[in-house]
Amino acid sequence: MAERNYIFDTIRSVFRTYGYSQIETPSMENLSTLLGKYGDEGDKLLYRVLNSGDAFAGVDPEQYRQEDGSLNSKALSLKLCEKGLRYDLTVPFARYVVQHQNEIPFPFKRFQIQPVWRADRPQKGRYREFYQCDVDAIGSKSQLCELELVQIVDKVFRLLDVRVVMKINNRKVLTGLAEIAGFPDKVVDITVAIDKLDKIGLDAVKAEMLEKGLSPQAVQVIEPVLSLSGDTAAKIGVMRGLMNGGSASGVVSETGLKGLDELEELFGYIGAAGISTACEIDLSLARGLNYYTGAIFEVKALDWQIGSICGGGRYDNLTGIFGLPDMSGVGVSFGADRIYDVLKGLGKFPASLSSATTLLFANMGEAAYVLPLASALRDAGIPVEIYPDPSKLKKQFDYAGRKSIPFISINGSEEAAAGTVNIKNLSSGEQRSYGIAETEAIAAFLRG
Amino acid sequence: MAERNYIFDTIRSVFRTYGYSQIETPSMENLSTLLGKYGDEGDKLLYRVLNSGDAFAGVDPEQYRQEDGSLNSKALSLKLCEKGLRYDLTVPFARYVVQHQNEIPFPFKRFQIQPVWRADRPQKGRYREFYQCDVDAIGSKSQLCELELVQIVDKVFRLLDVRVVMKINNRKVLTGLAEIAGFPDKVVDITVAIDKLDKIGLDAVKAEMLEKGLSPQAVQVIEPVLSLSGDTAAKIGVMRGLMNGGSASGVVSETGLKGLDELEELFGYIGAAGISTACEIDLSLARGLNYYTGAIFEVKALDWQIGSICGGGRYDNLTGIFGLPDMSGVGVSFGADRIYDVLKGLGKFPASLSSATTLLFANMGEAAYVLPLASALRDAGIPVEIYPDPSKLKKQFDYAGRKSIPFISINGSEEAAAGTVNIKNLSSGEQRSYGIAETEAIAAFLRG
Repeated sequence: MAERNYIFDTIRSVFRTYGYSQIETPSMENLSTLLGKYGDEGDKLLYRVLNSGDAFAGVDPEQYRQEDGSLNSKALSLKLCEKGLRYDLTVPFARYVVQHQNEIPFPFKRFQIQPVWRADRPQKGRYREFYQCDVDAIGSKSQLCELELVQIVDKVFRLLDVRVVMKINNRKVLTGLAEIAGFPDKVVDITVAIDKLDKIGLDAVKAEMLEKGLSPQAVQVIEPVLSLSGDTAAKIGVMRGLMNGGSASGVVSETGLKGLDELEELFGYIGAAGISTACEIDLSLARGLNYYTGAIFEVKALDWQIGSICGGGRYDNLTGIFGLPDMSGVGVSFGADRIYDVLKGLGKFPASLSSATTLLFANMGEAAYVLPLASALRDAGIPVEIYPDPSKLKKQFDYAGRKSIPFISINGSEEAAAGTVNIKNLSSGEQRSYGIAETEAIAAFLRG
Repeated sequence: MAERNYIFDTIRSVFRTYGYSQIETPSMENLSTLLGKYGDEGDKLLYRVLNSGDAFAGVDPEQYRQEDGSLNSKALSLKLCEKGLRYDLTVPFARYVVQHQNEIPFPFKRFQIQPVWRADRPQKGRYREFYQCDVDAIGSKSQLCELELVQIVDKVFRLLDVRVVMKINNRKVLTGLAEIAGFPDKVVDITVAIDKLDKIGLDAVKAEMLEKGLSPQAVQVIEPVLSLSGDTAAKIGVMRGLMNGGSASGVVSETGLKGLDELEELFGYIGAAGISTACEIDLSLARGLNYYTGAIFEVKALDWQIGSICGGGRYDNLTGIFGLPDMSGVGVSFGADRIYDVLKGLGKFPASLSSATTLLFANMGEAAYVLPLASALRDAGIPVEIYPDPSKLKKQFDYAGRKSIPFISINGSEEAAAGTVNIKNLSSGEQRSYGIAETEAIAAFLRG
């Protein structure tokens, strides 16, 4: 919990400096809002909540009896359950924007950190209830929105002290590439093949594209993209040439050129803003090709092997399905569980998180006289406990050990009478004695 | 959200200085854990979650057909739903303690801030999903645990700048009173009658007790309690006399004396610790008489009319129902919604909460040159936005107005060329011009 709060508090503090407001949506949404948004598999993983009151009143299950004698669970459960548990934060956000469109200031910049539920078979690292952490700006097509997300990612991981690379692609460029290759419906196949370049090499990528039904001419058009080199400007320059009729096919793609304009503008802003995170164009980035329409983002840790720890992109029609068309937005989602793994793996959690309590006053039956000192230390921000019972010292030491409390204070009637306290650093063994009123000196010792 | 976070962050910061650990339990519990814990009414208000997969496989609803032709919803839903949504934090906490009893360091001091769900008819101020905020110490019978809760309440409301009174009762004293009156089964009736003293007066209270079946002799025993006066020590002294055989009945109540010992010890600690919140004995406090076994707490705001904003007490058998007997604990629950109402009513929320963003850079098409300044201000902790599109100024001002942004910066090509920014305080109208690198001076102006 302390570790997770640390991650979320850090992320939240950055969102706030960019003017994003936190929203929360109810855990239960109407099933009609959720169904059909996550594919057939998603529909199966939705948790459905039985209608309250007498759920079966007026329902005759026999009407749902099928020819094979079984009940049609799907239809019957729709009758019995109006509500389902949130499956992600995106659909509730879209519903929220449409519902509150008259009260919301657009562009609407919101973040949301809430649990979601999926009726998955539980397995290592996959839970039925887990947190998502999304940040989106909706209602503007400006690349300054993309920039803000890049800045936020940069700042979050600097604060967490994790070196990352941010890979940036643009769906329109991928569309353009498929267009100039003459296979506009093969965007996904082309991108997925390009993505394998590092793993399987140039020849195998070309073979895969042919296997997926591309013509040799199309592969010839795409080949220069596989050997892009140089800095961002150089890469954009080569791509611009290709999109502008300079490829083997000679086809011009307006969409591709628009995508390159967007990338160029975004990288211009990135340069102007002074981002210290490495940001690079990666045309093989294939995340969310079904819904992203512009920028595509993916963040990877440089010093820890794990998938992407943050990702997102621009979408043009999030709210269309709820009746509000032409709402372009861009967002990223922070993968809290993976970020946790990275911080744990790299030992980047602050040491202060692991021990919630700094000092334990052991209880020898004389606890009352340390109460004012304990209060003063707490007022100084130092977590302090007093063992509540005058138990055997071994038990009290055990307690300190189990809670990783680094300092213990053991005082008997002599100290109580003299108005002093002994404070011992349990790892170094150093012990000091103080007057009960020497709060500042004691605080200094406890702070190391 | 910002206001609620402020309340929870404040409370959480206090819990931490006392060494309480935050836990979260899953939203879904087994219905077998939840059913029967909240009475018949509570069982009805539990949200049940349909089993995932094919919930009706192997279920024949006809087996649940009743004589009147309707289906037995209760029995059928038990078959279809294994899980339910958390109804409160207490039962999941008890389940958690029993389940993790071998890993937990006892006394176990935990707090928990999570939503709970109740299938209630929604109405003003009552939601189907709302947050509870509980803090408990379990595994010690020491009055130092009670003291800690008093200290926490004291500190929380001092930080929130709300004057409160903390009323303290003890269930054992009430039991003792019923015992010496000769009506040990009428504890609730006696307490509820005493509670009406201020409203209906002495004679009416006596009449009510007679009406509830107490004898005139019993009322005579109780009468001195109705006119208790003086400080805590004086009240405890009078009560001790009564419990010790000094009442009209002459009966001695060991339980009552034990309760008075506890109260005396607790008030001794309160005096030693130096609590600034007014703490007073209130024998009419009738909260949770069914489960509290020792101290009973209730906190009321002094300057705002609303019910109790925090309350709790000691229970001796929270975990017994899950197979772990003899676990005494004490806890309080902070009523976040009511605390919100009090802070709102008294105007005690910090002004900074209402405007998330301090400065809006308007967009006149020259936004790029302010990017480094915006980043520097954010690094200094000042929330800054850049309007993403070069829209009409009216639209941008509207945006600032709707988000209550107090400062706006409008700069055109001249300012961009000169490397300056204009910053205007929208409430005072004061406008200043700065060099783009004068971060500190600008930050000072923005901070007022």
